[in-house]
Amino acid sequence: MDSIEYEKRTITRGALKYTGKAKQVYTTDDPDILWVHYLDQATALNGKVKETISGKGELNSAISQLLFNYLTGNNIKNHYLHSISKTDELITSLDILPIEVVTRNYASGHFVSKFAATPMQKLTPIVQEFYYKSDALDDPFINDSQILALNYATTDELSKLRDESTIINRHLMDLFRQANIWLIDFKLEFGRTKNGDILLADELSPDNMRLVDIATGNSLDKDVFRKHSGDVTVGYQEVLTRLQQII
Amino acid sequence: MDSIEYEKRTITRGALKYTGKAKQVYTTDDPDILWVHYLDQATALNGKVKETISGKGELNSAISQLLFNYLTGNNIKNHYLHSISKTDELITSLDILPIEVVTRNYASGHFVSKFAATPMQKLTPIVQEFYYKSDALDDPFINDSQILALNYATTDELSKLRDESTIINRHLMDLFRQANIWLIDFKLEFGRTKNGDILLADELSPDNMRLVDIATGNSLDKDVFRKHSGDVTVGYQEVLTRLQQII
Ligand SMILES: Nc1ncnc2c1ncn2[C@@H]1O[C@H](COP(=O)(O)OP(=O)(O)OP(=O)(O)O)[C@@H](O)[C@H]1O
Ligand SMILES: Nc1ncnc2c1ncn2[C@@H]1O[C@H](COP(=O)(O)OP(=O)(O)OP(=O)(O)O)[C@@H](O)[C@H]1O
Ligand SMILES: [Mg+2]
Ligand SMILES: [Mg+2]
Repeated sequence: MDSIEYEKRTITRGALKYTGKAKQVYTTDDPDILWVHYLDQATALNGKVKETISGKGELNSAISQLLFNYLTGNNIKNHYLHSISKTDELITSLDILPIEVVTRNYASGHFVSKFAATPMQKLTPIVQEFYYKSDALDDPFINDSQILALNYATTDELSKLRDESTIINRHLMDLFRQANIWLIDFKLEFGRTKNGDILLADELSPDNMRLVDIATGNSLDKDVFRKHSGDVTVGYQEVLTRLQQII
Repeated sequence: MDSIEYEKRTITRGALKYTGKAKQVYTTDDPDILWVHYLDQATALNGKVKETISGKGELNSAISQLLFNYLTGNNIKNHYLHSISKTDELITSLDILPIEVVTRNYASGHFVSKFAATPMQKLTPIVQEFYYKSDALDDPFINDSQILALNYATTDELSKLRDESTIINRHLMDLFRQANIWLIDFKLEFGRTKNGDILLADELSPDNMRLVDIATGNSLDKDVFRKHSGDVTVGYQEVLTRLQQII
């Protein structure tokens, strides 16, 4: 499929703009709209480990669309526009801020090893971390003054990233709690629209979140892949099924 | 020498409380006062490289006392009380905050490699970084929300650390400029007094600063030791001599 009806017109897929670790991004005949295709691919350690996992693209696309729609319903502006197929979607084309925003509700992963924190320790207040999006530099951890001095974002944008992430965290935690899942931590990306607005972008999937089954304590996210402890799609399917039951 | 006249009484040195990489700290018969002895020792890479450098203790002690006095003259509260000898001094005993505050005026060292910044690039606004003081964890870079969640300091204390460091930076930059020296970056420590005040602590020496001769571009600080490019005491002596000429 390389065209789709959207808002009473036909949007046609154009050139491949970017092949990432999890998605392909295409231009369309509308300069403000991009066409995203979710890949059946998993990576760890910033791409150093890579594997094909059949069905993962569909699952991530479905979960992501469901979560973007849920946030839209809660007045959170985001880039998601329209579903094309089980793996493809239309999104608003943005100038992505070179900053990944990580929010942590419980101690896990790097946070534990870096600070000798207690695994799953509740973090109060929640922890918010910025990483500079650069594969060449391995996404270094960065603070506000460094971001400002290096001109990666403005003070205003940083406070928007923080505020939006806090609100999104509240909504996502609520939703996952209803699905009997702890939202441990997650990574967001944001982008600038033509008129300077900041929109939530990228994807909302277990690739970028730590999710733990409240009943069993099992990982339902990419940690299963990182730790080679089983088939990730089992957990992703479980997340999707539970979310579909409550939304 | 193990006692000294200070404010019309005799202060006597007590037990060794702490042997650090650069100083020994002793208790005294006054619980609010410590006795510091500067060592002839240099370390790099968090103590992994260690060497005796004769004369360094005296130079650091002299520079530090001179800079603390200069800051006192500019209304910056600090722990320095009194000179005992060329290597020893009395300080106010503090509960040291487990946070090292780094201020950067120009890009150098880790900042350059981490962000592929241009060496000596002017940083506007100035960069301020917090590191969690923990030898076991290798002093990890930390942000405000992490500090708060881990209870290492309060919001109020963090803004005091930031404000005080900014003012101290202004005064030190001014002073070094008069001495024909660029203050590239430096590390400060602060501590809590019994009644909750925050005071500047530790030492103010080329061990914890990057200083560059404006005329020649030469390093006058511990980088000389880190890079094995000569005798550090030559630079330290130059710094001391120039500061003595203007203060
Ligand atoms: N609305 C948008 N407009 C433009 N680009 C977007 C938008 N949403 C996401 N992107 C970008 O598209 C790419 C998505 O691909 P993928 O998630 O596979 O990337 P990745 O391998 O994680 O790479 P990166 O390190 O760049 O995030 C990312 O670079 C992401 O920032
Ligand atoms: N006013 C003060 N009250 C109590 N302790 C102090 C005060 N000023 C400095 N200190 C502490 O005394 C020690 C000084 O020793 P030194 O500079 O050699 O330590 P170091 O090897 O750098 O170790 P550290 O990693 O603890 O800073 C440091 O731990 C410092 O935090
Ligand atoms: Mg991605
Ligand atoms: Mg020290």
